Amino acid sequence: MFEAAELGHHIDKATWKAEEPPLREALLDLQYQMHERAERSVVILLAGVPTAGKGEMANKLMEWMDPRHIATHAFSTHPLDDAGRPEMYRFWRSLPPKGQISILFGGWYAGPIWAGEHQQDAATLQREAEKIARFERMLASEGVLLLKFWLHLSAPELKKRMQKLSDNPLTAWRVADEDHAYLKHYPRNLDSARKLLMATNLALAPWRVVESVDENFRALTVGRQLKDALSHHVARSAEAENRVEAPPLLPPVDGLRLLDTLKLNHELDKHDYQQQLEALQGRLNGLSRDPGFAKMAVVVAFEGMDAAGKGGAIRRITGALDVRQYRVVPIAAPTDEEKAQPWLWRFWRHVPARGRFTVFDRTWYGRVLVERIEGFASVPEWMRAYNEINDFEMQLDAAGVVVVKFWLSIDQDEQLKRFQSREEIGYKRFKITDDDWRNREKWSQYVEAASDMIERTSTPHAPWHLIGANNKYHARINVLQTLCDAIEAGLARQAGAVTRTSHKKK
Amino acid sequence: MFEAAELGHHIDKATWKAEEPPLREALLDLQYQMHERAERSVVILLAGVPTAGKGEMANKLMEWMDPRHIATHAFSTHPLDDAGRPEMYRFWRSLPPKGQISILFGGWYAGPIWAGEHQQDAATLQREAEKIARFERMLASEGVLLLKFWLHLSAPELKKRMQKLSDNPLTAWRVADEDHAYLKHYPRNLDSARKLLMATNLALAPWRVVESVDENFRALTVGRQLKDALSHHVARSAEAENRVEAPPLLPPVDGLRLLDTLKLNHELDKHDYQQQLEALQGRLNGLSRDPGFAKMAVVVAFEGMDAAGKGGAIRRITGALDVRQYRVVPIAAPTDEEKAQPWLWRFWRHVPARGRFTVFDRTWYGRVLVERIEGFASVPEWMRAYNEINDFEMQLDAAGVVVVKFWLSIDQDEQLKRFQSREEIGYKRFKITDDDWRNREKWSQYVEAASDMIERTSTPHAPWHLIGANNKYHARINVLQTLCDAIEAGLARQAGAVTRTSHKKK
Repeated sequence: MFEAAELGHHIDKATWKAEEPPLREALLDLQYQMHERAERSVVILLAGVPTAGKGEMANKLMEWMDPRHIATHAFSTHPLDDAGRPEMYRFWRSLPPKGQISILFGGWYAGPIWAGEHQQDAATLQREAEKIARFERMLASEGVLLLKFWLHLSAPELKKRMQKLSDNPLTAWRVADEDHAYLKHYPRNLDSARKLLMATNLALAPWRVVESVDENFRALTVGRQLKDALSHHVARSAEAENRVEAPPLLPPVDGLRLLDTLKLNHELDKHDYQQQLEALQGRLNGLSRDPGFAKMAVVVAFEGMDAAGKGGAIRRITGALDVRQYRVVPIAAPTDEEKAQPWLWRFWRHVPARGRFTVFDRTWYGRVLVERIEGFASVPEWMRAYNEINDFEMQLDAAGVVVVKFWLSIDQDEQLKRFQSREEIGYKRFKITDDDWRNREKWSQYVEAASDMIERTSTPHAPWHLIGANNKYHARINVLQTLCDAIEAGLARQAGAVTRTSHKKK
Repeated sequence: MFEAAELGHHIDKATWKAEEPPLREALLDLQYQMHERAERSVVILLAGVPTAGKGEMANKLMEWMDPRHIATHAFSTHPLDDAGRPEMYRFWRSLPPKGQISILFGGWYAGPIWAGEHQQDAATLQREAEKIARFERMLASEGVLLLKFWLHLSAPELKKRMQKLSDNPLTAWRVADEDHAYLKHYPRNLDSARKLLMATNLALAPWRVVESVDENFRALTVGRQLKDALSHHVARSAEAENRVEAPPLLPPVDGLRLLDTLKLNHELDKHDYQQQLEALQGRLNGLSRDPGFAKMAVVVAFEGMDAAGKGGAIRRITGALDVRQYRVVPIAAPTDEEKAQPWLWRFWRHVPARGRFTVFDRTWYGRVLVERIEGFASVPEWMRAYNEINDFEMQLDAAGVVVVKFWLSIDQDEQLKRFQSREEIGYKRFKITDDDWRNREKWSQYVEAASDMIERTSTPHAPWHLIGANNKYHARINVLQTLCDAIEAGLARQAGAVTRTSHKKK
């Protein structure tokens, strides 16, 4: 992996003087073209041996191009405390909007698992690499151009560099204690790096190893690779790529769909409902104040047919909680800042901090429901969404965020009754729009899409809970019960995890 | 102030049962109307004696209305660390977008100055109150409805409430040590509160003191006030209010405007420029790595005629800095998330953290330049913007953020030459648009607006630096020199402040 970056590459002054100006002009031109079209974005990830010049390289890129459309983000080896949110949260927050460039120092390769601090076993490394591969594939599909550079120095060159920096009082601050440690264990560290690069050297986002001894060589190499990738990127429309034909899903040949089998009618009268409601709300309130709850978080996701009772169920949940502890997020059309990002970005921004609830009224599943049915997402887009969603929820789960997903089902007669009552009652008139009537005509398509969705995204860590909701009371009780059970399981897992960790330490 | 809230107010069960349902329905209806129109937003600020039920009241409001369009924000007495940003930063971040409601616990009244921890002298209190008054006036002008409630308990009632909560193991957690301290020094604390409420009892956002012993009385009182304010708010268009006629500014009767007197031509050849540039960039780089710099921050603001050389000057600044330390923010049309907020919101979001630079290419001064000239802002809107801007910059200054503002001036001949060269040179073609030619026709209006702006917003803590920029080299040198001087002054002040603080401690 590093052999070609220890050959003593060098660019002489004359070559540099001849090559730099046209390269610079080409990069600037490509940057402006990309910015004008605002269809795709670019992530330049800089990693490498310490003191190899990641900062200088970034400075050079900023000098060459227009710094007004480039943002830089440095990440430390140890993740900052994002209030318990998943590790990827901070990377999602640093993605450039369309038309823009982000330069990331280390990025998602800066985590402790890669730092070679504690040698990881091969299986863990592989798992992490696969997680990253899925993330980078998602970026590529969303039109983000990712360029990963490893700036390299051999052990003798690193030693020389550190010596030179230390000798000059103006640059001595650039050599940190960790850098000395890195040099001391250079072979072991490089071995870790090799494994990392090998495992994440994807066809769609390969590593580019650059010898970093001669700064002109480094700059020209990175610059040319960037120019080449950008021209390729600018020339091809993101739109066009996503229109690739893919065979759509077919309904079951006997016509029997998962959701057709759900029991929709249940018995529960108002009196029993109120008794059970009070008990369950008390239970939920108690769970939310459990000392262990401060170390976890909850995402509640509601989907279902229009007028299936999502709003009512949400109010029964929030009614049991302290307002300072939850946030209800209704999902409507994306804002323009959201549209300029990979599609999951607008859900990531609402991931709850430790000790908190986020309740989504409609969710990321819109991608495989309304967007599929209305054609807002192309077939390949919504087809890959199943995996992207499973990844998202797996990351939430791994960070101790309990994900509870409800599908509320009613039949067409019940929906009609509710639509009519909404049109009659004063303040309920806001709850019914022309869209609702239009969606109703596509009933069967929704049943099909929802059945596919449930089949493909019901995972052990985030199963779908299907609620027959013709009887509102029964539905609400069912929702509260399921939610309490899930939080209790989360608390138990939390307690178990704490015990396991403390065992390890002994 | 609190007399009427110690009368033993009470609402009996029958009244409650009769009054609550219609109130609830009316509130929900008003909330939906406001949400649909998305023209204004609502901030409900809850303050008061400890355990007086701020949380319960917020819960009740969430229960009455649709929680999907309400966000809550709790603020502790001691500000969280926003990486050295001004105290108001976190409140700006919690403002509701148009059509939405935010419930704030304490809000900008939660700061230590109000907590009665250390008795403030009358002058300090008055100064703080005036700062708040200006902020609340700005909110009102921007169509934000602010309702401030003080939930009150007399000393005996507070004691009783705390006793009752402590006796029940399920509620004992709600009584904190601070609450005991509050009770112990009740008269002194209440005296602080009285001063606070009196000083910030503005006609446009009066305090509403509510006796909080009987929860039905509390809820009906708050609910009705909210309903009344909302109906008033919903009925009147924010647009219409801002169209109030105001006499515009008149140009000086002799026609001589501030900017007409600026010297535009200077001598500096390329060779001298390059020598001075190198020295100044070295100086700037050194300042940015000064240990004291980590405790301050810098905002650089660029305005000027089109093609006056803002971009070039910015690149000479960023060229001297480490990319991890700065952010360049080009100001273009606001996004829809930005449009849904008070106009300064989109600049507040870019306020730099401690140790960092934000360079604005065009700024908040667009309000009194292009928005004034094109009529995007009404006369009262841009007229009040001068004060709003001065407040914004004063708050930056108070938080140790050095604000350096440049106006770059060229004459019309020079602009024409530059426009033409932009149209000819390949990658520069992105820098010239039809808008630029259109603006050129309004040259005189821009000179007038800029002259007014400089006169009204050149303050001791954030003076305008007027740069005659027909000679690019001279302009860039002048910019760098001014910036270095300002940072040096900031560092000296920083050092002085530290010394002063440590003196106090002795």
